[in-house]
Amino acid sequence: MQNKNSKELYTQYKEMTQKAADIQFAAAVLGWDQEVYMPPKGFESRGRQLATLASQAHELLTSEQYGELLHELAAKDDLDDDEKSNVRLSLEDYEKNRKLPPAFVEELTRQTSNSYNAWIQARRENKYSVYKNELSKMIDLKRKQADLYGYEAHPYNALLDEYEKGATVAMLDPVFEQVKEQLPPLLKSIEQAQQVDDSSFFTRHYPKQQQWDFSMTVLRRMGYDLDAGRQDYSEHPFTTSFSSEDVRVTTRVDEDNFASMLWSSIHEGGHALYEQGLPSGEYGMPLGTAASLAIHESQSRLWENSVGRSLNFWEYFYPKLQQYFPQSLEDVSLDTFYKGMNKVEASLVRTEADELSYHFHVLIRYEIEKKLIGGTLSAEGLNEVWNDYYKQYLGVSAPGDMQGVLQDVHWCHGSFGYFPTYSLGSFYAAQFFEQAAKDIPGLQGEIKQGDFKKLLHWLRTRVHVHGRHYTSEELCERITGRGLDFTSFMNYAKAKYTAVYDLKG
Amino acid sequence: MQNKNSKELYTQYKEMTQKAADIQFAAAVLGWDQEVYMPPKGFESRGRQLATLASQAHELLTSEQYGELLHELAAKDDLDDDEKSNVRLSLEDYEKNRKLPPAFVEELTRQTSNSYNAWIQARRENKYSVYKNELSKMIDLKRKQADLYGYEAHPYNALLDEYEKGATVAMLDPVFEQVKEQLPPLLKSIEQAQQVDDSSFFTRHYPKQQQWDFSMTVLRRMGYDLDAGRQDYSEHPFTTSFSSEDVRVTTRVDEDNFASMLWSSIHEGGHALYEQGLPSGEYGMPLGTAASLAIHESQSRLWENSVGRSLNFWEYFYPKLQQYFPQSLEDVSLDTFYKGMNKVEASLVRTEADELSYHFHVLIRYEIEKKLIGGTLSAEGLNEVWNDYYKQYLGVSAPGDMQGVLQDVHWCHGSFGYFPTYSLGSFYAAQFFEQAAKDIPGLQGEIKQGDFKKLLHWLRTRVHVHGRHYTSEELCERITGRGLDFTSFMNYAKAKYTAVYDLKG
Repeated sequence: MQNKNSKELYTQYKEMTQKAADIQFAAAVLGWDQEVYMPPKGFESRGRQLATLASQAHELLTSEQYGELLHELAAKDDLDDDEKSNVRLSLEDYEKNRKLPPAFVEELTRQTSNSYNAWIQARRENKYSVYKNELSKMIDLKRKQADLYGYEAHPYNALLDEYEKGATVAMLDPVFEQVKEQLPPLLKSIEQAQQVDDSSFFTRHYPKQQQWDFSMTVLRRMGYDLDAGRQDYSEHPFTTSFSSEDVRVTTRVDEDNFASMLWSSIHEGGHALYEQGLPSGEYGMPLGTAASLAIHESQSRLWENSVGRSLNFWEYFYPKLQQYFPQSLEDVSLDTFYKGMNKVEASLVRTEADELSYHFHVLIRYEIEKKLIGGTLSAEGLNEVWNDYYKQYLGVSAPGDMQGVLQDVHWCHGSFGYFPTYSLGSFYAAQFFEQAAKDIPGLQGEIKQGDFKKLLHWLRTRVHVHGRHYTSEELCERITGRGLDFTSFMNYAKAKYTAVYDLKG
Repeated sequence: MQNKNSKELYTQYKEMTQKAADIQFAAAVLGWDQEVYMPPKGFESRGRQLATLASQAHELLTSEQYGELLHELAAKDDLDDDEKSNVRLSLEDYEKNRKLPPAFVEELTRQTSNSYNAWIQARRENKYSVYKNELSKMIDLKRKQADLYGYEAHPYNALLDEYEKGATVAMLDPVFEQVKEQLPPLLKSIEQAQQVDDSSFFTRHYPKQQQWDFSMTVLRRMGYDLDAGRQDYSEHPFTTSFSSEDVRVTTRVDEDNFASMLWSSIHEGGHALYEQGLPSGEYGMPLGTAASLAIHESQSRLWENSVGRSLNFWEYFYPKLQQYFPQSLEDVSLDTFYKGMNKVEASLVRTEADELSYHFHVLIRYEIEKKLIGGTLSAEGLNEVWNDYYKQYLGVSAPGDMQGVLQDVHWCHGSFGYFPTYSLGSFYAAQFFEQAAKDIPGLQGEIKQGDFKKLLHWLRTRVHVHGRHYTSEELCERITGRGLDFTSFMNYAKAKYTAVYDLKG
């Protein structure tokens, strides 16, 4: 039995934590509005409103009072397991948060804004040099941040840990070694195989409203609860959440490129299903939040790639899709459509990459970040370094910095250590889906009938319901009996592309 | 010269005030989203997020530190005039806020929620008795609140002051006396005059998209800056503001009743122009906010009634409107359209009332509130009292409580003292517009050409730019040379309806 004292303390801790969450969710609403509906002149006041909310939440979560509460609770042995997990995770967060002096946080916020503005300007001029100095300052701050956090072995580990707890250079190097060793032979066979039929039908005309309607059909069918969510348009698709009962996605529509909307809706839908599946009783608590960025990405990639780019998925949806777009798709067979969407071709821009070459885009960023934070590379001439890497790994050359080093927003936000979670997410996705196929008899048959209920239930009970209880690796082991194993992804890739490209076994 | 100490103190005060404003504006964004886009299941978490933001702002604005700062600043004589006004107004707010103990504020919040739920239920059942007890508790709390605030002469004064500084029973009684004396003869002549041509064309079919497009045309023409605002749909139209650079309106569309959208868009547009005209340099400060509810309402009513229901306005817009709705309006002449929109007829529901009988709706609420807060009337049998008043003043009888005492949401929110500002707003509007016509030569000619630039400029410089610097009465005196004068409204009403109904002079 829990004595009254622990109960009271826990209640107090829960109230403070949820209060901070209220503020952070409020900030998320403002962020959503900013991307989706805010009139342009609202930009300045919105900036200060977001800054105030961030500082209010930060103040609560780094207060002495909160720390004392957490330390007291951590010493109690009469909390139940979930309570212990929450306290343990909040204490971890607290100690991490406390390591950054307020003045440093402010400097970082200011530099984010400066770097972002410089990046925008540099993109406008297609000139890395315009961005270089502000990026350099950001790198210095992130190196300083790594020092403030403290680290073992490599300063980059301190930053990786922020996005993916437990991820280190020692864990990632072997993963990307496998990427470097095992993917090129497959890519080589694909290159040598006969070309996939034309995929140019994707760039025919697809009216906006029909694209929207089709994406809503897919989202509904996936199991996305539209009484607890909605889809809107935004320039860059994203998922955001204000509780597990209000989880929103956005999409974009290019009438002359159907692929633009299609994958983003399914991808964001996967993220959204995760957020809707988090335990609502743990609102605002660590157990009510996602396990990690990589696990989040595993959910979006599983739906996008393992499901959404599979032949069975389109066995169900393609006839419907043809009804939405009779003019553009009547002469395109299911086989052509399926192969076209799985065309593999090295390209310059990460967000447009196919499922395989994608990981070289991430690998390049990983290598560069490791060196930048390790201090063996600087912002000076980084566009050249970038281009050399692209030449080496993907065999392509950017016509300008815009499609090279300036393509991602992450670095101006100071998000060094974020990119690797994209590849980890894909690899976890393949491993989870492999397991789901074992656990759910007839899974592919159900997908073929547009029935995702069992798959969603499997994800809910295996992944979503646990919130942040387990680290990515713990969760993966629980679900699949082993930690991250690149083999699953390679097996998936080999099977899929052997069929698509008719490769010799 | 202001010494450094005052400057520093003022900066500190400004930072705290604007921080609280950031939080309050953030809450307004959440409130807007709740009415406009929030999925239904988001309701519960949104409620707690709003409560947390409210308490965070309240905490800042009632802190000892804030009070000390304000008192110190109030004693300084080296602030400039605007700074002095801000400090004076913030101190007033502070002292008012401090009078309510946190426990009382919590109780009031809880009771608001209880009363609101009971009201919803009562409306569903069309039965006042379901609401009575919760309303009664709310009345008790409001009487207690009046005691906590303190008052002279009448407890209702303490509540009036919350919505309209300086408004008292002693000020309002004579105003409503004039309503009671002067409006009935005019209404009588209208009743005896020949009927206005049919206004049934308003309930023909008006397609949604065209209604929307027309309302946007009107809003743009009025001068509403859509780079600093936007219009969306909601069940009940409203205006909200997150800074003078982000001011939003909502409207509703009933395809079978064109009047529903038309007046609400112009009305909310008037509110929005005021908010957009507030000095942006005073973001979050008293001088950056509206003078009062009555003055706010004067802006919406001026646009809705003095402008939007005038013949000249429609000289410009009616041909355009006919193009939007050729089928519904081709056989309706401008004269018929104009007379139809100004049809006077006593009715049961305030929000659907004509410009004249409207004030009896307000008067009834004013009389009832005065008695409820004064303690000479209770919630028991209030539906009967309500119906008696309607019989007496408007000669109409509600078929049920839904269209009687249950029609307004205000009382469940505890907003006793709010209603009178609606009438004050109309009367100020008439007085301001009368003055504008004197100050702007050719004003009516410009309206006839759909040109509102000079009128808006006049409102900007006479009303908007001053923010909360002056009370309603001070502002009215500054603009028109005298305080509120019901004569302006009567003159406006007589002139207008003499023409519309062809009354004998």
